[in-house]
Amino acid sequence: MPYRAPVDEYKFIFDHIVDLEKVVKTDRFSEATPDMTTAILSEAGRMCEEVLYPLQRNGDLHPAHLENGVVRTSPGYSDGYKAIAEGGWISISANPEFGGMGLPMAVATAVNEMMSSACLSLQLNPLMTQGQIEALEHHASAAIKEIYLPKLVSGEWAGTMNLTEAQAGSDVGALRSKAEDNGDGSYAVTGQKIYISWGDNDFTENVCHLVLARLPDGVPGTKGISLFLVPKFIPDENGNPGRANSLSVVSLEHKMGLHGSPTAVMQFDGATGWLIGEKHDGMRAMFTMMNNARLGVGGQGIGTAEGAYQHALAYALERKQGRSPVEDGTGTILDHADVRRMLTTMKAEITVARSIALACAVAIDMQTATGNKEWGARAAFLTPIAKAFGTETGIDVSNMGIQVHGGMGFIEETGAAQYFRDVRVTAIYEGTNGIQAMDLVARKLMDGGEAAYTLLDEIEAQAEAGRTTLPDLAEPVWQASETLREAVEWMVAQKDLNQRFAGAASFLRAFARILGGHFHLSAAIAEGGTGPRSKLARFYITRLLPEHAGLLAHATAGADDLYALTPEDLGA
Amino acid sequence: MPYRAPVDEYKFIFDHIVDLEKVVKTDRFSEATPDMTTAILSEAGRMCEEVLYPLQRNGDLHPAHLENGVVRTSPGYSDGYKAIAEGGWISISANPEFGGMGLPMAVATAVNEMMSSACLSLQLNPLMTQGQIEALEHHASAAIKEIYLPKLVSGEWAGTMNLTEAQAGSDVGALRSKAEDNGDGSYAVTGQKIYISWGDNDFTENVCHLVLARLPDGVPGTKGISLFLVPKFIPDENGNPGRANSLSVVSLEHKMGLHGSPTAVMQFDGATGWLIGEKHDGMRAMFTMMNNARLGVGGQGIGTAEGAYQHALAYALERKQGRSPVEDGTGTILDHADVRRMLTTMKAEITVARSIALACAVAIDMQTATGNKEWGARAAFLTPIAKAFGTETGIDVSNMGIQVHGGMGFIEETGAAQYFRDVRVTAIYEGTNGIQAMDLVARKLMDGGEAAYTLLDEIEAQAEAGRTTLPDLAEPVWQASETLREAVEWMVAQKDLNQRFAGAASFLRAFARILGGHFHLSAAIAEGGTGPRSKLARFYITRLLPEHAGLLAHATAGADDLYALTPEDLGA
Repeated sequence: MPYRAPVDEYKFIFDHIVDLEKVVKTDRFSEATPDMTTAILSEAGRMCEEVLYPLQRNGDLHPAHLENGVVRTSPGYSDGYKAIAEGGWISISANPEFGGMGLPMAVATAVNEMMSSACLSLQLNPLMTQGQIEALEHHASAAIKEIYLPKLVSGEWAGTMNLTEAQAGSDVGALRSKAEDNGDGSYAVTGQKIYISWGDNDFTENVCHLVLARLPDGVPGTKGISLFLVPKFIPDENGNPGRANSLSVVSLEHKMGLHGSPTAVMQFDGATGWLIGEKHDGMRAMFTMMNNARLGVGGQGIGTAEGAYQHALAYALERKQGRSPVEDGTGTILDHADVRRMLTTMKAEITVARSIALACAVAIDMQTATGNKEWGARAAFLTPIAKAFGTETGIDVSNMGIQVHGGMGFIEETGAAQYFRDVRVTAIYEGTNGIQAMDLVARKLMDGGEAAYTLLDEIEAQAEAGRTTLPDLAEPVWQASETLREAVEWMVAQKDLNQRFAGAASFLRAFARILGGHFHLSAAIAEGGTGPRSKLARFYITRLLPEHAGLLAHATAGADDLYALTPEDLGA
Repeated sequence: MPYRAPVDEYKFIFDHIVDLEKVVKTDRFSEATPDMTTAILSEAGRMCEEVLYPLQRNGDLHPAHLENGVVRTSPGYSDGYKAIAEGGWISISANPEFGGMGLPMAVATAVNEMMSSACLSLQLNPLMTQGQIEALEHHASAAIKEIYLPKLVSGEWAGTMNLTEAQAGSDVGALRSKAEDNGDGSYAVTGQKIYISWGDNDFTENVCHLVLARLPDGVPGTKGISLFLVPKFIPDENGNPGRANSLSVVSLEHKMGLHGSPTAVMQFDGATGWLIGEKHDGMRAMFTMMNNARLGVGGQGIGTAEGAYQHALAYALERKQGRSPVEDGTGTILDHADVRRMLTTMKAEITVARSIALACAVAIDMQTATGNKEWGARAAFLTPIAKAFGTETGIDVSNMGIQVHGGMGFIEETGAAQYFRDVRVTAIYEGTNGIQAMDLVARKLMDGGEAAYTLLDEIEAQAEAGRTTLPDLAEPVWQASETLREAVEWMVAQKDLNQRFAGAASFLRAFARILGGHFHLSAAIAEGGTGPRSKLARFYITRLLPEHAGLLAHATAGADDLYALTPEDLGA
């Protein structure tokens, strides 16, 4: 059951759902013509199909491991990484000044997604590097940029993010790592970091760690944190890896999945690092990296969902079992209503999550190209939805993929379970989905709901336009959007943030539901109301969109009933 | 973080939600006084806490394996099994004539659930034996009963179910295993069976396989299948294990979870077996076993959910991270709204699933005690809901348990992931949850909806009675029940079963949602509207019950839109 890169899907979404054309019309991205985009996606897709996908099981069966302090990666991962680096797939959206392709984030998002479908654990490596490139482009000094960016862009060196400490997870401000000025422009960084994805590898010449630590005059909390670049090998005067830095991999975690990605405990013992951005302003620099990483992690969820979907569909098209009441079907279990219900749900949900992620990427590109703050606000608003709904879709779809396989789904050889085990962490890292939901209802509504209302205005304008030709699809979308608007108003009116937080997860999911109705409607309109996408839209709008009402009842219930229950009531 | 048997929970549900008293009032179960039940639950609970729970990780870390054709079980499982057998916990509801306690299925269901919380993979062994005892009690000859039942009841021997073959999973009728008359009252059984849970072990003297196979004159399909009892060792004239039968374990599966339970491929090469029930009537005998096994598997889901809930709650009560806006809280992550939302959801859902399972068990007991067909119809109607909703609750709650743990949830040492990996199969075996949903909307509505309407009448009668004192809880339950009633009417009106099947899974889930509203309302009424259970009821009815509307929209959408999508539209 080979993986097939869904290039036509991305093209359809670019053309008819998220309007990539407006990005291409800007000076900044004028080179990203449809022909160019198609060529990029096709070439990257081929690499994913032929080089990365065959590695996926290797990572699971032969996890990365530590051998005398050295990380040994899974069989074939070194070659897979080389194919990614040499294809330029790490740096599609990186600045051409340092060797990047300078293409839109929308294109990079699609390529990242394909790599996730093919081999999630390996894809996480370049995803981390992409974030580091982004952070250095925005916040590093010219000297640092010149040494590091060409190496990171080419993939000769890899990048990591070092935020978490045992006592400082979601609460980054509680970190204890320290940095002291060496007096020579460098700093000595000391501390222990945990959950460092790809903390080391055996296929790049260097590994560059972005580490959050506190300077002696840094205040407690997030406002006293600075960001440092701490390389495994300190570059010599020619910019080549020189002497080993004072850092080490203490251990690797034994995880539920994603075995091909070494998750390290990193120890920094006065390691030499360089300040990135301003002193005590590390969180801002980190967020540059993290916002795009959040979109990227959403893409990991979507890519895994696509892989799990193709895998389950292939099984359903082969497996014969029982007789379905349907004549002229495939003669396989796909004829059974409940199997078809699962697969259609999987496909419809992937369309939603993918459209949200690409709409977010387009907003990022428009902000980059035009500097327009409205696009920035839209990107900021859509990011937590893209992350949380994308990863939930990865989890839900791969879980359904197991179910489609029946008994075979529980047997590891089948591969269905690995999709689920691998993707499970994406709802946790880069800010748990709970954190995403809190971000959405607090920070992202600090504009009084403007970004949200602008989206709803667009959704309703399209639904109104679609009413005459496709009333059965347009009307429910319009109604749902109105219900959502009331929920936004309710949220904005709550001065006590905890009233918002209690319904945040449901609010986020409801918002994704309505965006899904909007995007499916866009597809149906583009198709003229008949054809496969219109049929899928009808399925989604009839069967899945109605979930929004229950979700919004939950979203606007407030916090009082939740806190009425004491810890003792819960069993403490 | 030890497991604590929730004995008080069962007692509350027995007393105030499912009315066990009416069972105790029957002659058949008059010995099951509240004192007796409390004593049983407490003693079984202690065994689960002290003996079984410490074994849970052993099974995961040291899976059962095959050594020169012999199954070696996980460390400590032999002692754990002995404690179960010696406590009499295999045969709580078995007939006293052969050594069983003869207590209600409701009590057995609670004990099974506790054993599932403590060590799911080991609990599966006695669960299979219980099903076999049930099948033999109803369908075996007196001679067979005399030899086998005392040994199965005491736990000296274990029982298994052998249905599935590679080409015959959900479609049991496609099986190819054969049986031929030996002319001496025994039969020669030949064939290969897969997915045989606890196909062998190294701690019982014998393993007795109930095997479905076809006699030479058996017609194709399910109507030509007979059931045979095929022991690993053929009992000698004294009823002791004698010569080895012609059967073997070919291999064990490498599974996503439940590693402590050996899942075998069994080969029967003219193995000696005895007919159970009538020729060609094996499916009926098997269903006796399977219906109670389905309730038992639902209990596995609920037990796992309870274990995962306690585990996550303990973590949330310890882990400090960030500051919550709530004053006077625990000072831990339990103060955060989204964490509390998850834990409260987990607890509320467990209450629902557990009440459904125990209501089903009470209906079985009433049928057993009174022979009243209405109770039989209720048990039959609730069984697929208990199985599917119980196991989905196991999956959803353990998945949330991972999320509550944050990054720790993805690390195997934590134990949160094991709950999920172990319970995942329960939605698949004993009839996938898709099969349960089809059973509910087809076979269980063949009475024109009578069993369903009787339940809805009860739900609405209680809601009407509750309206004056607890209108905020009673009114939404009444409304939801009315909406469900319309959906039942819609289902019953569909002559084309596939129209029902397309919405079956959502219908089943919606039914569980409304039953949940009803049972939470019962709890609140019993408590007088204030107290922990009333607060939990308020949470459930406000936040989770509203899901039913979206589910029922899906349930009654029919099949046409689903089949409008061709396999090519789905990507074939």
